[in-house]
Amino acid sequence: MRLQVALDRMSVAHAVELTRQVAAFADWIEVGTSLIKANGMTAVAEVVAAAGTTPVLADTKTADDAVTEVDMCHKAGARATSVLALAPDDTIRACVARAGDLGMETLVDLLATGAGRFDELLAQHSGRPDLVWAAHVGKDQQRHGAANGGLAWITPRSGGHRVAVAGGLDQQQVAALTQLHGDLRVIVGSAITKAVDPAAAAAAFRSLLAAGPQQGPSPREATT
Amino acid sequence: MRLQVALDRMSVAHAVELTRQVAAFADWIEVGTSLIKANGMTAVAEVVAAAGTTPVLADTKTADDAVTEVDMCHKAGARATSVLALAPDDTIRACVARAGDLGMETLVDLLATGAGRFDELLAQHSGRPDLVWAAHVGKDQQRHGAANGGLAWITPRSGGHRVAVAGGLDQQQVAALTQLHGDLRVIVGSAITKAVDPAAAAAAFRSLLAAGPQQGPSPREATT
Repeated sequence: MRLQVALDRMSVAHAVELTRQVAAFADWIEVGTSLIKANGMTAVAEVVAAAGTTPVLADTKTADDAVTEVDMCHKAGARATSVLALAPDDTIRACVARAGDLGMETLVDLLATGAGRFDELLAQHSGRPDLVWAAHVGKDQQRHGAANGGLAWITPRSGGHRVAVAGGLDQQQVAALTQLHGDLRVIVGSAITKAVDPAAAAAAFRSLLAAGPQQGPSPREATT
Repeated sequence: MRLQVALDRMSVAHAVELTRQVAAFADWIEVGTSLIKANGMTAVAEVVAAAGTTPVLADTKTADDAVTEVDMCHKAGARATSVLALAPDDTIRACVARAGDLGMETLVDLLATGAGRFDELLAQHSGRPDLVWAAHVGKDQQRHGAANGGLAWITPRSGGHRVAVAGGLDQQQVAALTQLHGDLRVIVGSAITKAVDPAAAAAAFRSLLAAGPQQGPSPREATT
């Protein structure tokens, strides 16, 4: 089980401070879409500088013009970007190819999709070790009570692929996930970033993930 | 017929310079997604300052967390943002509602959708005067030769709604569009921004649009 800490709706200075506090407990630091759209690649570069050896994912939610977006994130030091599963196939292919050429990973955000779209994309991208598929309930959906049912259709299809889950997760939900999934990247935002002691909260999530069922390393992380 | 000039893949300084050159010929200036992700709201604010009375659309391509994105664009002086038609319904509703509260418009980008999704969204948002529906062939799709067939299914459904068209348009294509559509917002990027004389190119598009069939003002612009 892996931990990705997502930084959203805060200043770059606060993101940098939080990164310093939590990077040691995280497998990935995510510069959220709101930080990118508010501050541009400055946000990515400053978080990269603060994250030390912890890799940074730029949550671009790319929908078009993939090479431009991957390239700007690479230049800012990001090790991964995200692309919307709903984007045109050409965009997803361009994103994955460019990221692969640059030694970066791509998180495919399955926001507002279903099993049919996941099957299409798996068929187009099977065997790629540098992809992570993310079940994601958006912030606006959470406000209306949507639950993250994505893992129910993602997990049985995802053999050999890495899977992430995102969307308002708290410690109780993560504890439940650890009992059901042998390997998963858990993306946590405000449950860490809005905690009174973010470092302690990140450490608590880390302990929860370590306490889950025994597992091997994930497909890519085994080889790098 | 209206002209929106889109600024993408350039520095903020160049975007500001181009805005000064073309604003007088444009109904809207668009700060492209690439400028926003590279530079954040600085790009929007600087283009707004350069655009004078010409309104600025921030092409956020919002997919989630709509209120955050609309608010940051409003603060930067934008008069419109964009939301992906593929985004969750909750996100589109939140975007349209917040923009409406702030007196802003929303461009719904129909990228990678079809008639079915357009019908769904029209049913949810019928009667709103502050929406523009954009047929859009993405940059990555253009590279693979995709044509913009969106107007074929958008136009017969769009009575009373404003419609825009985007995606690698040149003067020849725009001239053809003026013969087929009584009212349309034409979004032009590199055919103006990469021209040897961008102001002359913008003026040429403006003349083409003025030469189209006679029409009344568009639904909203008639009342403001």
